[in-house]
Amino acid sequence: MGCGLLAVLAKNGALIADRSGRDFQVVTVSARDKNREREADISAYEWHDDPLQLADPQKVDVVVELIGGAEGTALDLARAALSKGISLVTANKAMIAHHGDELARLAEQSGAVLRFEAAVAGGIPIVKTVKEGLAANRIDRMHGILNGTANFILTLMEDSGASFDDALGQAQALGYAEADPSFDIDGVDTAHKISILTSLAFGAPPSMDLPIEGIRAITDIDIAYARELGFRIKLLGIARITDDGKLDQRVHACLVDANETLSKVGGAANAIEAHGDFVGPCMIEGLGAGAGPTASAVMADLIELARGNRNSTFSMPASKLKPLPLLETGTRRGEFYVRLRVADKAGVMAEIASALRDEGVSVERLIQRTRASDDSVHLIMTTHQTTEARMQAVLSRFHKIDDVLDTPCMLRIEPI
Amino acid sequence: MGCGLLAVLAKNGALIADRSGRDFQVVTVSARDKNREREADISAYEWHDDPLQLADPQKVDVVVELIGGAEGTALDLARAALSKGISLVTANKAMIAHHGDELARLAEQSGAVLRFEAAVAGGIPIVKTVKEGLAANRIDRMHGILNGTANFILTLMEDSGASFDDALGQAQALGYAEADPSFDIDGVDTAHKISILTSLAFGAPPSMDLPIEGIRAITDIDIAYARELGFRIKLLGIARITDDGKLDQRVHACLVDANETLSKVGGAANAIEAHGDFVGPCMIEGLGAGAGPTASAVMADLIELARGNRNSTFSMPASKLKPLPLLETGTRRGEFYVRLRVADKAGVMAEIASALRDEGVSVERLIQRTRASDDSVHLIMTTHQTTEARMQAVLSRFHKIDDVLDTPCMLRIEPI
Repeated sequence: MGCGLLAVLAKNGALIADRSGRDFQVVTVSARDKNREREADISAYEWHDDPLQLADPQKVDVVVELIGGAEGTALDLARAALSKGISLVTANKAMIAHHGDELARLAEQSGAVLRFEAAVAGGIPIVKTVKEGLAANRIDRMHGILNGTANFILTLMEDSGASFDDALGQAQALGYAEADPSFDIDGVDTAHKISILTSLAFGAPPSMDLPIEGIRAITDIDIAYARELGFRIKLLGIARITDDGKLDQRVHACLVDANETLSKVGGAANAIEAHGDFVGPCMIEGLGAGAGPTASAVMADLIELARGNRNSTFSMPASKLKPLPLLETGTRRGEFYVRLRVADKAGVMAEIASALRDEGVSVERLIQRTRASDDSVHLIMTTHQTTEARMQAVLSRFHKIDDVLDTPCMLRIEPI
Repeated sequence: MGCGLLAVLAKNGALIADRSGRDFQVVTVSARDKNREREADISAYEWHDDPLQLADPQKVDVVVELIGGAEGTALDLARAALSKGISLVTANKAMIAHHGDELARLAEQSGAVLRFEAAVAGGIPIVKTVKEGLAANRIDRMHGILNGTANFILTLMEDSGASFDDALGQAQALGYAEADPSFDIDGVDTAHKISILTSLAFGAPPSMDLPIEGIRAITDIDIAYARELGFRIKLLGIARITDDGKLDQRVHACLVDANETLSKVGGAANAIEAHGDFVGPCMIEGLGAGAGPTASAVMADLIELARGNRNSTFSMPASKLKPLPLLETGTRRGEFYVRLRVADKAGVMAEIASALRDEGVSVERLIQRTRASDDSVHLIMTTHQTTEARMQAVLSRFHKIDDVLDTPCMLRIEPI
């Protein structure tokens, strides 16, 4: 990551000096292993084994933190820099999502600036867009594809008919997924990002108090039926303010209308849509990860610092951020997709229909198809509007039916 | 337009004060007719019949210019404000495209700031994205749908099979096109916008020295054949730097691969894609016109002024802007689409084929179809890569063939 930034300075340094009015000088660096083979030559810079030594106001104006992790060295370094009045540029979504409020206060107290464009959607300047470009608007909704790894896997399943495991394996082989892919495919990375966007858009401190589901339960069967029903399956981060002022913030795989632009965002791309009361919908799409896009975003923050632009960390001073009341998950209304595998026997359908009737959930579409390989049957249904609570009640009823063979798969249909 | 801005302040004033750290006060206003019926009550503000009276540094920090027009009152007001050190926020693309260089110098001399987010693509913060979000990148290409009226007409022709005249009539009836639609449909408005983006991206003063074609010559036949060939027709503003450092800046209707995101941008929406050397491609889409989106962009500029952000007018100081050598239009290479109506006679095809052979243009696809209504024949062809000069030579040869019945229609196939 640090080498990407050095590459930007090496290639575009003169242009950046024209644009920012300042020359950038790398003074001192630190990393886990000084002698690791690197793309950039770092021998000209002062080296510290202890990253905390970088936070020396006699030597540096800005610390760039590209370590990662919500706690540990990254957080220690951020606290050290900001408390001494040294501005901090970071790509660390976990740290900002978990400790952004504290760090914003530290920055304000010392007169430092905290910037994190690279923390959300990589090279896409979505932090700037929300904080500045759309600053005249009351934003009531944001949603987006915020994790390129998960989108790559879902797109591969879509395009090739691959199973989840095969697609994950290919993503790992191609370097799109890490050996331990859980942050990406379990939705945690998306949750970090949407919680930061929530803070920027709605004036609340970032909070990780939200329901998070990933994409491990999605099968090639779901991909195929979703397509048949006119949808694509996308892992979305969603944050919206309900009519009564509550925050509905969540991460899960959704069925998205196949005609929507967002459902056509393929591969490792990211895309985010924001709705403002004056601007209407505004969508931005690009590369959400990788050394080049990350360095582009980190350098953009450094250029803004050089230009003297000192916006508040989260759109407004930390003292003005107010936690929002959360929407109780069970009360959220929506339409749902359910896939069941059931034994091909008389009476199963009656049990399923009873469960739906008893919980007051009405079915919009039903597809029943016998599997070739055994004598089980796939039942795919989409519901009319109902609440999450009723849907959960239906699912636990389904689960208790002996002839429902696997754990039911439920996905939300997200109108965007 | 002014009323849109007053509506933003009335609805979101408190939120904007939190975000910007300043209260905004409207002090004095001017317009052509004081007593015209308006959506906003302006009776509380000091009125001037003469807009130049607004430029009074004793009374105002910023003048907002929403008059329009490259010259005249708008330019007089801009010069008056900026020369007195009063910052200017404007939505006036014509004025910035024609006089941006002079106004940027005026602003720098007096210490004022000139901002024009609303001048390009309405509510979409593309000026900020290029100037700031992508500031670390050497941008080598930008292209976009920058005129909602033209895109609305093309989308309507696409969706309904309407002729150009019918689609224009509907656009006028619905308020998407003005009574005199020439700026929109002849590409001039798009040219203003792309010339501003060129300046921001490539460090040149804005220049209107570029080839401009609009959409009047596009027929429902072209729309249908383009679709058959796997394309959509879009009016694009394009600006790119060639490998040898020349500026290729132009506005015309193009055939765009139907699978590209840009070709799916329908109705009155705008979308712009920029390619940077580190960020890769980045696309932003939203509403390019209307009172709400325009007010959103104007207010965003005002908020940045309130926050004290003082970036250069065109990404870098005016003294550093350098005109770029222009690509000679004839040398530009590309693929082309041509539609001819010819008499259904022996020998016509031989004449056409000779013209193509003599000029060294080779055909990639050819569709010949007899019209039901008369005994003429449509010949639709796409070419392999050739130069614009050769293509123009072919067209003038076609034009001289007696049995070529109408002026040939030529469109460029734009790889994006």
